[in-house]
Amino acid sequence: MTQLLRVQNFGVSRDGFGTGEGQSFEHPFGHANPMDFFWWAGATASWPNRTDPGGSRGIDDYFTRDYERNIGAEIMGRNKFGYQRGPWEDHEWQGWWGDEPPFHTPVFVLTHHLRPSFTLSDTTFHFLDATPAEALEQAKAAADGRDVRLGGGTTVIREFLDADLVDTLHIALAPVELGRGERLWDSPDDLLDRFHREEVQSPSGVTHLIYWRR
Amino acid sequence: MTQLLRVQNFGVSRDGFGTGEGQSFEHPFGHANPMDFFWWAGATASWPNRTDPGGSRGIDDYFTRDYERNIGAEIMGRNKFGYQRGPWEDHEWQGWWGDEPPFHTPVFVLTHHLRPSFTLSDTTFHFLDATPAEALEQAKAAADGRDVRLGGGTTVIREFLDADLVDTLHIALAPVELGRGERLWDSPDDLLDRFHREEVQSPSGVTHLIYWRR
Repeated sequence: MTQLLRVQNFGVSRDGFGTGEGQSFEHPFGHANPMDFFWWAGATASWPNRTDPGGSRGIDDYFTRDYERNIGAEIMGRNKFGYQRGPWEDHEWQGWWGDEPPFHTPVFVLTHHLRPSFTLSDTTFHFLDATPAEALEQAKAAADGRDVRLGGGTTVIREFLDADLVDTLHIALAPVELGRGERLWDSPDDLLDRFHREEVQSPSGVTHLIYWRR
Repeated sequence: MTQLLRVQNFGVSRDGFGTGEGQSFEHPFGHANPMDFFWWAGATASWPNRTDPGGSRGIDDYFTRDYERNIGAEIMGRNKFGYQRGPWEDHEWQGWWGDEPPFHTPVFVLTHHLRPSFTLSDTTFHFLDATPAEALEQAKAAADGRDVRLGGGTTVIREFLDADLVDTLHIALAPVELGRGERLWDSPDDLLDRFHREEVQSPSGVTHLIYWRR
């Protein structure tokens, strides 16, 4: 089986932004409200952080539970891993996700500032200063035959799209306008020269855009 | 985690039939054309019997690949297992699926005519003369904590619905009329007293109906 590079459950505003402006520890999505991107997944039965029973099992749940299906590794940018920029002051920061990160696979963090790998539960974070193609090669080797998730943020997805390395994307188009921030695209049509697209409108208000390589 | 009983990818005609009339070895779906029920799944990249590369990765592919996710056992009726009715003349018939059945789990076949269990590749078929509740208890015990798929046919799904044992259903509504055969329902609205429903229209022409218990 071919190993795919997949973008999964990545939230984008109606005006094309994947993150707001001014990311910080207090505001990981900058001026954007993270719930504007995640509310639809948080309402489903399969949401990993669900504490109360219940949750919907409709179309949003299909997308939520597909997040981890057949994924053997993730690639993410340094700005998804944390709020700090530039050289590490120390290595105390271990990501946003606490002692049980939701990845359960090796994770490759792209950064010009290397640091030692570390493991939290069943997730190991590695730090790479590499081109997209080099990073993908390492992630595929670590994925044990399974696919690789491209976790974002926005800049990293753009870089891998520019290098034509992405096989499928699931973009969750949120019914909000951000006005500024990190832009994924001018329009969802930008990718149609290289990708098929289908569009599924969920009753929750999110629009699921599914792209796969032509 | 709760173990669910799930109907997955079950095809029904616009007028409510899950199978045509007059099932036989030559015509497993009676007067219905099996392709009218399966064409949408067969066109996807995840279709298990795919021989050529390619295939769509849109919304139909999500449903196709969800068929096996977190399934630990299947329950099916004798009429899905084979075309013979009444007492077995011999035990040579081992199902429609050849040496590599697509189940990969224990399968419990409901029948009044028992016969010994047998194994093909990683699928073991057991034969049970039991009520729906008893069969479900055995299947859950065999499923190793995972969910149980209710594989059909139509009559078996009706029996489990009547016993209120079904947790979720994915029905693939095919754009055909059959006129006669085995009826699942008078209308897709019949289940709304007990289930939530969402509807997803695929570009392929199939309508995915997703039900989950209220």
